[in-house]
Amino acid sequence: MKKNDNFRITNLGDPKIISPIHLSKTIGDSIFNFVEDTDRILADVKLKNLHSSLEHDVIPDSYERSGPREKIFFKGENTTAAIVTCGGLCPGINNVIRSLVMALHYFYGVKRIVGIPYGYEGLNPEVGHDFIELTPDKVKDIHEFGGTILGSSRGGQDVSVMVDTLVNNKIDILFAIGGDGTLKGANAIGTEILNRGLKIAVTGIPKTIDNDIDIIDKSFGFETSFDVACPIVRDAHNEADGAYNGMAIVKLMGRDSGFIAASTALSMPVVNFVLVPEMDFELEGENGFLENLKKRLNSKKHAVIVVAEGAGQHLFKNDEATTDASGNIQHKDIGILLKEKIKAYFDAIDMKTTIKYIDPSYIIRSAPANANDSLYCNHLAYHAVHGAMAGKTNFVVASVNNRFVYLPIADVTKKRKKINMEGGFWFGALQSTGQPFSMK
Amino acid sequence: MKKNDNFRITNLGDPKIISPIHLSKTIGDSIFNFVEDTDRILADVKLKNLHSSLEHDVIPDSYERSGPREKIFFKGENTTAAIVTCGGLCPGINNVIRSLVMALHYFYGVKRIVGIPYGYEGLNPEVGHDFIELTPDKVKDIHEFGGTILGSSRGGQDVSVMVDTLVNNKIDILFAIGGDGTLKGANAIGTEILNRGLKIAVTGIPKTIDNDIDIIDKSFGFETSFDVACPIVRDAHNEADGAYNGMAIVKLMGRDSGFIAASTALSMPVVNFVLVPEMDFELEGENGFLENLKKRLNSKKHAVIVVAEGAGQHLFKNDEATTDASGNIQHKDIGILLKEKIKAYFDAIDMKTTIKYIDPSYIIRSAPANANDSLYCNHLAYHAVHGAMAGKTNFVVASVNNRFVYLPIADVTKKRKKINMEGGFWFGALQSTGQPFSMK
Amino acid sequence: MKKNDNFRITNLGDPKIISPIHLSKTIGDSIFNFVEDTDRILADVKLKNLHSSLEHDVIPDSYERSGPREKIFFKGENTTAAIVTCGGLCPGINNVIRSLVMALHYFYGVKRIVGIPYGYEGLNPEVGHDFIELTPDKVKDIHEFGGTILGSSRGGQDVSVMVDTLVNNKIDILFAIGGDGTLKGANAIGTEILNRGLKIAVTGIPKTIDNDIDIIDKSFGFETSFDVACPIVRDAHNEADGAYNGMAIVKLMGRDSGFIAASTALSMPVVNFVLVPEMDFELEGENGFLENLKKRLNSKKHAVIVVAEGAGQHLFKNDEATTDASGNIQHKDIGILLKEKIKAYFDAIDMKTTIKYIDPSYIIRSAPANANDSLYCNHLAYHAVHGAMAGKTNFVVASVNNRFVYLPIADVTKKRKKINMEGGFWFGALQSTGQPFSMK
Amino acid sequence: MKKNDNFRITNLGDPKIISPIHLSKTIGDSIFNFVEDTDRILADVKLKNLHSSLEHDVIPDSYERSGPREKIFFKGENTTAAIVTCGGLCPGINNVIRSLVMALHYFYGVKRIVGIPYGYEGLNPEVGHDFIELTPDKVKDIHEFGGTILGSSRGGQDVSVMVDTLVNNKIDILFAIGGDGTLKGANAIGTEILNRGLKIAVTGIPKTIDNDIDIIDKSFGFETSFDVACPIVRDAHNEADGAYNGMAIVKLMGRDSGFIAASTALSMPVVNFVLVPEMDFELEGENGFLENLKKRLNSKKHAVIVVAEGAGQHLFKNDEATTDASGNIQHKDIGILLKEKIKAYFDAIDMKTTIKYIDPSYIIRSAPANANDSLYCNHLAYHAVHGAMAGKTNFVVASVNNRFVYLPIADVTKKRKKINMEGGFWFGALQSTGQPFSMK
Repeated sequence: MKKNDNFRITNLGDPKIISPIHLSKTIGDSIFNFVEDTDRILADVKLKNLHSSLEHDVIPDSYERSGPREKIFFKGENTTAAIVTCGGLCPGINNVIRSLVMALHYFYGVKRIVGIPYGYEGLNPEVGHDFIELTPDKVKDIHEFGGTILGSSRGGQDVSVMVDTLVNNKIDILFAIGGDGTLKGANAIGTEILNRGLKIAVTGIPKTIDNDIDIIDKSFGFETSFDVACPIVRDAHNEADGAYNGMAIVKLMGRDSGFIAASTALSMPVVNFVLVPEMDFELEGENGFLENLKKRLNSKKHAVIVVAEGAGQHLFKNDEATTDASGNIQHKDIGILLKEKIKAYFDAIDMKTTIKYIDPSYIIRSAPANANDSLYCNHLAYHAVHGAMAGKTNFVVASVNNRFVYLPIADVTKKRKKINMEGGFWFGALQSTGQPFSMK
Repeated sequence: MKKNDNFRITNLGDPKIISPIHLSKTIGDSIFNFVEDTDRILADVKLKNLHSSLEHDVIPDSYERSGPREKIFFKGENTTAAIVTCGGLCPGINNVIRSLVMALHYFYGVKRIVGIPYGYEGLNPEVGHDFIELTPDKVKDIHEFGGTILGSSRGGQDVSVMVDTLVNNKIDILFAIGGDGTLKGANAIGTEILNRGLKIAVTGIPKTIDNDIDIIDKSFGFETSFDVACPIVRDAHNEADGAYNGMAIVKLMGRDSGFIAASTALSMPVVNFVLVPEMDFELEGENGFLENLKKRLNSKKHAVIVVAEGAGQHLFKNDEATTDASGNIQHKDIGILLKEKIKAYFDAIDMKTTIKYIDPSYIIRSAPANANDSLYCNHLAYHAVHGAMAGKTNFVVASVNNRFVYLPIADVTKKRKKINMEGGFWFGALQSTGQPFSMK
Repeated sequence: MKKNDNFRITNLGDPKIISPIHLSKTIGDSIFNFVEDTDRILADVKLKNLHSSLEHDVIPDSYERSGPREKIFFKGENTTAAIVTCGGLCPGINNVIRSLVMALHYFYGVKRIVGIPYGYEGLNPEVGHDFIELTPDKVKDIHEFGGTILGSSRGGQDVSVMVDTLVNNKIDILFAIGGDGTLKGANAIGTEILNRGLKIAVTGIPKTIDNDIDIIDKSFGFETSFDVACPIVRDAHNEADGAYNGMAIVKLMGRDSGFIAASTALSMPVVNFVLVPEMDFELEGENGFLENLKKRLNSKKHAVIVVAEGAGQHLFKNDEATTDASGNIQHKDIGILLKEKIKAYFDAIDMKTTIKYIDPSYIIRSAPANANDSLYCNHLAYHAVHGAMAGKTNFVVASVNNRFVYLPIADVTKKRKKINMEGGFWFGALQSTGQPFSMK
Repeated sequence: MKKNDNFRITNLGDPKIISPIHLSKTIGDSIFNFVEDTDRILADVKLKNLHSSLEHDVIPDSYERSGPREKIFFKGENTTAAIVTCGGLCPGINNVIRSLVMALHYFYGVKRIVGIPYGYEGLNPEVGHDFIELTPDKVKDIHEFGGTILGSSRGGQDVSVMVDTLVNNKIDILFAIGGDGTLKGANAIGTEILNRGLKIAVTGIPKTIDNDIDIIDKSFGFETSFDVACPIVRDAHNEADGAYNGMAIVKLMGRDSGFIAASTALSMPVVNFVLVPEMDFELEGENGFLENLKKRLNSKKHAVIVVAEGAGQHLFKNDEATTDASGNIQHKDIGILLKEKIKAYFDAIDMKTTIKYIDPSYIIRSAPANANDSLYCNHLAYHAVHGAMAGKTNFVVASVNNRFVYLPIADVTKKRKKINMEGGFWFGALQSTGQPFSMK
């Protein structure tokens, strides 16, 4: 069969140091075994696709299993690690920071760990933020709080300057916690490092509350986000139901991908309509959203609408969109537009309504992680440390098909993950809300 | 001493029916005693004021103690009660409804209880909403939910029409759950009833999330409101702290009275500034808010600001205020104004900042009641039922000086309760935030 | 390659009825496609194991993908469905009941849905519980509450009697929500039905708070269980830390599988020791638990211990174990034993300690489902309905490798799922607690 | 009228130092006014009792209003303060510690603040715990956590030794946070100090989750305790309702006073029976608890019972009670006894039941304070600091009739506050549960 070199992780060099972690290579001794670079997880779990691969004599795609390696690249006592957090807040950042510090310190005896303040800005000496020394004692309680103790910022910095800063501060490993832009930045830093022939590992931990990083099962903080959204939506229903022809519009995060909105709708059955960026819909027309909304009001006298921030962008004129410092398109507020359009529509037909608009975005993203996200953050941090100490670079750690793997950053940033409008997840959301497949 | 006739409750007539509740008149038998109309609670607990009263030979003001009377006015098996909920949502409304129904049904055997749908609108037959039959089975779980199962609306209806509706539907007791406007409406209904010589009792249960009903210790739902606000503010601090010179502005309810904002500031010490309607402050100037804010940023690099919706109205031009259907002045959004002014100020001095604006009002007011509010709601409902069954009318039930009393509606709606800028509560808030006494 | 007939689902007959659900068979039209019985998901995602399969010319194991079929077996308007809930409480049962009812009613127009009260007991006419009619209106809010509105019981009933009851009540589909024992019972019922040549579908929805059903990713309610446990453990740490040499022991569910205990330890880093049934450990001895505990106290003056109810059963004499009505082994209370042994050990060496023992089991299992479990419950219920309506029987619905599949009941009840002591999950828990690989 | 010298606070001496707090003595300038020692609050708010006082020409009892004094006794820059926390955990201790530190540091410039570790033990040098330096930075986040960062212990130490320790460490003010025993201890320390002619102020902040300190409105943490208990009881109802003739028994704190149990019952209407220490009841007999329980099961098939830990002690033989290190009577477990007696009773009449017993005590007392308790803790701490800095000693701070006052420790420890079985609060609980006035 043809060899398949997809999804290969770059190494800084040959790992020659014996890991200080006391594991085993024997099966059946109840002690975890070192993971080998050749342990791989299938990318595609559909039997039909496997058959198709085999027919073409191609080994199917697979990902490198993450975990502690028997031989590592960095000697802990000589190693300095740095952690940077970029972009918007997301539940679980502090959990990741905490577990990175604990794993570096206790598993590998890494002597110095520094926090880069306020995102990539902190790697620009001209901005002049001071590094933050991170110790187990400093971080031991931070998982109880949302936000990031390191501070964050949006936008990039000159890659060459950032690499200089790493070199000047004798940093051996950089952990970058962030979304699409951050990871692309990390990849650029890591590539520059390789080009310069330096031995600094760059590791990404995907942080995107929108859950829009490609390939991976989920990003940390995502489950918390709809866990926090659900009681808000439950109570928004009280606002809708408490008025005659009452409506509540809840805007949730999701620039290009509506996972939070759709998950909330699927968790919380009071939602009657969910609008996501992946979805093509019209307000007007016989089968448009407004007509469907009217039917709902006529039958039940209230309606709850969940809308992702990036939904319905076609309803704005093109010239209205701008870009933020991270390069994300800044959408006009679809929630406010919806409220205005709904009001105008029902006013025009003399139907008395009450509309409440709720935007809990900052409340959600600044919350502490729930238990399952905390667990996930810990796993991610441990795996990131094991990979980085082994000298791997330009990689992210993530769960795929329920297994933890290392993936090249370049592979997960090729495109954004979106809801498949023809897939089972979206079908589930439609089944839960009862809204039609198409509103146009 | 001179007699004091203040705060006397009106009775529909002489209560002659023996209460079906089996209580006692004996002290020391471990059975609750019937309350007498002459049991009264002192209005003012300051010793100096008592001395002053006595010097003038005046019996000090007092309020009638609430509770079950030995003789009642209405015979349960012949009685129909109605419940109406008006104005904005507030945690605990369903708890009150539930306990009114339970008390009417189980304590007094009231045969029929109806819910008036969508506020006073439901008493206008032209609008055409149907009454909702309320039974123990129907209401048994509603306390778990925020909102009101009866629906609500703002604004009044013609008093004469409403009284006609009560008469036409043979309603003997009306419980009106609502704020200042609702209670004034209830008083008007009750007065019209007395003028017509009818025997219908009208009882108010003060519902005002702003806690601005005069005389009373607190209104139900108020404690829940800042209980819900606190974690939101805690996490808003993460937003502020997560950015260099980051600020979070949280707008909370409080049209004319800043109790929620100040209580939140006093509960949650991450708050650095609290702005309330009672407070006179300036943005500009050497000791203005913006200068104080700059000092805070310079020393700590972040700030959390809690602002009541009615604060800083002098910053708007007069012509911008409008009135809602309940007659409440509709304020311009102080939160948005603050955000703009802060941004402009720091932009002008080239200080890079990040400002997050959070408005959780609908999230707070639609939440279910916490435990202490649930307890309070139950007490209020029981006392309201005891008073109404005894034939009292045009009264509210409330806690004053930690005791439950009946108060004439007219007395509690004379003026709004406001934070005393010279009192201990506000001083506590200032001590907690560290902000100066005056910012102007 | 050799055919592989493992994990095949039994059908009651040829599905000939056109599904009332309007889906598509076209890729790319943004409408969900009907799922075919031949769509299958790989069981094993390890590349090495795939290579090994292929070397032996064996098609690897796979599972049938779940979802709506184009042709179904039951015509909704003629169909009666029944739902039964058995065994202990678990977060999410009401969510499953709710979504089964909604899917049966709205997707397939099933006319009658009945709830079997109090578990399999309700299928024994001699016990004499009445069926509960289930309608959308009846179930619409039940997801807000933990527990089961149908009631539950442990233990089986005569299979033949139960099948008679289904026949006598003209029930076409039985949904059984329960754990290992319940599912075995459902399989026995389904097998008896097939043996009698009847056309009644039997579907299981695995409910096991211990997460011990084999093959599947997770059972519903499991994530909620450690979500509820985490703040309890966080606060147990306050009890430990609040006393000199203070210890808190928290006992969590887990008869044979320690998933809840280990997940809690991995989510909540205050845990210093986690003891699970899968683990071989000794109290005494140089590397025993007690000696490790002493080391911890000497260095930090407090310790938090999480123990699964089934851990350390070797510490009891064999004759002390009994069996409950579901056939589960009733363990002696390891928490109380631990407390006694710890106290005795430190008393013997004159070390003053304080031990708090906390058993939150009933608090956890009776809680409502969190958001992610609610979402999962909805998916499970929808898939269960689609499968049952298609005439499949003796199957469960579950997520495997992050995809929803149908599995023969017989395959998931062959053995209990346990924590792999040599796997990454347990290694994660050890990394989080810092406890040694072995304590004996 | 006759002078009334009750409830007078002792002063260490004449306060001569000008307070560093910039307040006002002018009414109407929107700046809080210094409080004078002669500002007093009436103890009794009943009009009838006032009349009775006046008839006897007696000035009614009153309490000294708390707050900042214009002249103080201690100069901050020369002052060392110490904080000690004793007895069991209670929500809010850390809030009090935090606000004491903040007020001492920021309001009065107190230079050194130390934490006494592990209760009064920490004042015994032979035990050898080290003091903990408390600074604003050290305590700024501790209010987010339950427990006490200082640690606690039960039991007293030799008063003379403790005073020696205060003297040797040059401590000027001692804040003792604790319940009845702790306050008596504080009073003994304060009295010894006065006897020795020393100038050390001793201040108590009443901490009793049972809410059993006499005179005062409520103790901090009490409201949180039933706020935490309520969802546990709500879900215990799921356990009861989920089984045929299912019962759930929830044991709550309350050694001698059943305030938590009764408040929970009054907040959470699923409770059918509440048993408190103040209540005289029998298990057996025609109107006994068991017979009433049977009636409930026969009509509703489930029951929820809340029992205070100190209830029903007459059901144990006298010799079974012991005393803990704080001198509290250690009760036998009434919850377990009830479970056994209930089981035996229904077994004897062949009625099949299921009983779940839940003891959430440690979960409740170790929880963080809710918002209203946080607010209350802050007020208490501020007032305690103002009083201590003014040189007052042997006093507690508390709210009475909704106003903050200083009370002599000796007056609040004369007897425990108990529920008045003939009062409105207990009547409310009975109305909510529907249980009879008497069960014997």
